Amino acid sequence: MTERVLTLGIDIGGTKIAGGLVDDAGTVVDCLRRETPGHAVAAVEQAIVDVVEELSHRAISESYGTCVAVGIGAAGWVSTDRSTVLFSPHLAWRNTPLRAHLAQRMSLPVWVDNDANAAAWAEYRFGAARGHETAACVTLGTGIGGAVISAGRLQRGAFGVAGEWGHARVVPDGRRCVCGNRGCWEQYASGRALASAGQELIEVAPAAASALLASVDGDGGRLTGADVTSAAMAGDPAAIELVREVGTWLGEGMVTIAMIVDPSVLVVGGGVGALGELLLGPARERFLATLPGRGYRPAPEIVEASLGADAGMIGAAELARNKLG
Amino acid sequence: MTERVLTLGIDIGGTKIAGGLVDDAGTVVDCLRRETPGHAVAAVEQAIVDVVEELSHRAISESYGTCVAVGIGAAGWVSTDRSTVLFSPHLAWRNTPLRAHLAQRMSLPVWVDNDANAAAWAEYRFGAARGHETAACVTLGTGIGGAVISAGRLQRGAFGVAGEWGHARVVPDGRRCVCGNRGCWEQYASGRALASAGQELIEVAPAAASALLASVDGDGGRLTGADVTSAAMAGDPAAIELVREVGTWLGEGMVTIAMIVDPSVLVVGGGVGALGELLLGPARERFLATLPGRGYRPAPEIVEASLGADAGMIGAAELARNKLG
Repeated sequence: MTERVLTLGIDIGGTKIAGGLVDDAGTVVDCLRRETPGHAVAAVEQAIVDVVEELSHRAISESYGTCVAVGIGAAGWVSTDRSTVLFSPHLAWRNTPLRAHLAQRMSLPVWVDNDANAAAWAEYRFGAARGHETAACVTLGTGIGGAVISAGRLQRGAFGVAGEWGHARVVPDGRRCVCGNRGCWEQYASGRALASAGQELIEVAPAAASALLASVDGDGGRLTGADVTSAAMAGDPAAIELVREVGTWLGEGMVTIAMIVDPSVLVVGGGVGALGELLLGPARERFLATLPGRGYRPAPEIVEASLGADAGMIGAAELARNKLG
Repeated sequence: MTERVLTLGIDIGGTKIAGGLVDDAGTVVDCLRRETPGHAVAAVEQAIVDVVEELSHRAISESYGTCVAVGIGAAGWVSTDRSTVLFSPHLAWRNTPLRAHLAQRMSLPVWVDNDANAAAWAEYRFGAARGHETAACVTLGTGIGGAVISAGRLQRGAFGVAGEWGHARVVPDGRRCVCGNRGCWEQYASGRALASAGQELIEVAPAAASALLASVDGDGGRLTGADVTSAAMAGDPAAIELVREVGTWLGEGMVTIAMIVDPSVLVVGGGVGALGELLLGPARERFLATLPGRGYRPAPEIVEASLGADAGMIGAAELARNKLG
């Protein structure tokens, strides 16, 4: 019997690290999740090494197969040689040679990619973008990540930064962003935007925000995007209204992607993307009402990602597998 | 002696039609220019046929070589099969099968492309973007055209509309655009934007606009982008200030292109692009002050197109040549 060849995918976000053993059909054989241990480079690297060691041991002890490479999907901009994290708006990486750091401490070959690139690649190979020649994936987490696939290839751009539309400006002199600029799209359409809008509602109109307030035991400052998401899914009208607002900004920004990239599908994933039609309905409405030349050009589909929270690890694993040739 | 193989390139803008006989090194052997005869589909098609016939005759009578195909660069969005103009913000084409219409009236094979795609392809093959794997070209004429080249291929997108960033929104609820929307980039950074800004200056502050007023014999409503461009080049401080404003908006929008496409070069062409550093200086300044992650990621070069007004016809001719295989 031929042993199954696995690759190990790690998805590192601003708040969570997820690792998984993945086979060539994109199936997650085993996985584990940890909190991101603060934002310091050394602590995050240690956490990655720990996850790799534990999953490598499990691959052997549970006879899952042979693990042959590690792919990292990192919440940062990664050089085209898939080695260096140039900049991370949400973590401490600044020109950090992450691949070299990890290679010193692991026996397996390792490759680094942007987390949204990894998630998009998974959706293209195994999920909602399958069968599309030109696809754009928008990942809504704490911020907005993104990636473009064209002619079956992940578009990394000249410096590895393609698809970073979370920091495209949608409002001149708009809200201050973690990247230092003002008016970035992710200040209007992301988990963080949902949290800010919810906190504002609690402060200005607490009576309208009673369900949201109850969800954080009366401490509005603690409200997260996930809290608003849960409340909206549970049917709270105030939360649904906040989601509609964020969804409308999502649609607004996706028009810019459509004008520049012209994909046949726009896939919306990430934690906030799990809101499904509550979010995509208003997004699609704004998108179709705003797309230039509407009626005289085909419009791309706007669909929910299908691989959920596993997309990043699956894509990172699959991108590492591709490198084996 | 082997006869030179030529292709005929036609560039159709909102105001001018230019045709040229082009060889395989991108050299324009002969060319002619006409005014666009109104916006009606039939009149524009007749003008194209006339230009093709005249240049075909010259190819023979002047012994330039054999003309084997016609490439059209049209100011509109063209289907990926290079046959149908889906929509033109500036001309009357709406789902117009331009290729079929022309093929009935010409003996040569004909292909249709977007005019900015054609100009970008010329800059990539023979001009300012040569040697760049990933390039974005911004064509500033009456409006803004654009195109992306990645891995040596023109990116047409899923529906032929990639690179149409002139109608990406830069200001919510902003200025009304010819496409019907509000806040499109080309209302802030184009020949039309330059004309509007000049007309506003004349109306509100005629004393500051004396040179501009003189250039149109005191009739502010006649002022065009080309008038402002000429005045700026001649050193008029008011015109230079208007160009600076438009250049700043140019830089602002190019950041969005950099975040989505991540090119190593941004080439600025078209009539307004001929302003050179008067325009590119302010554009670069805003671009470098705004690029997210600046200092931690390489910035693309921002350069002037090198083929001038011939880029569209050269590119259209070269794209038709490519189709011959």
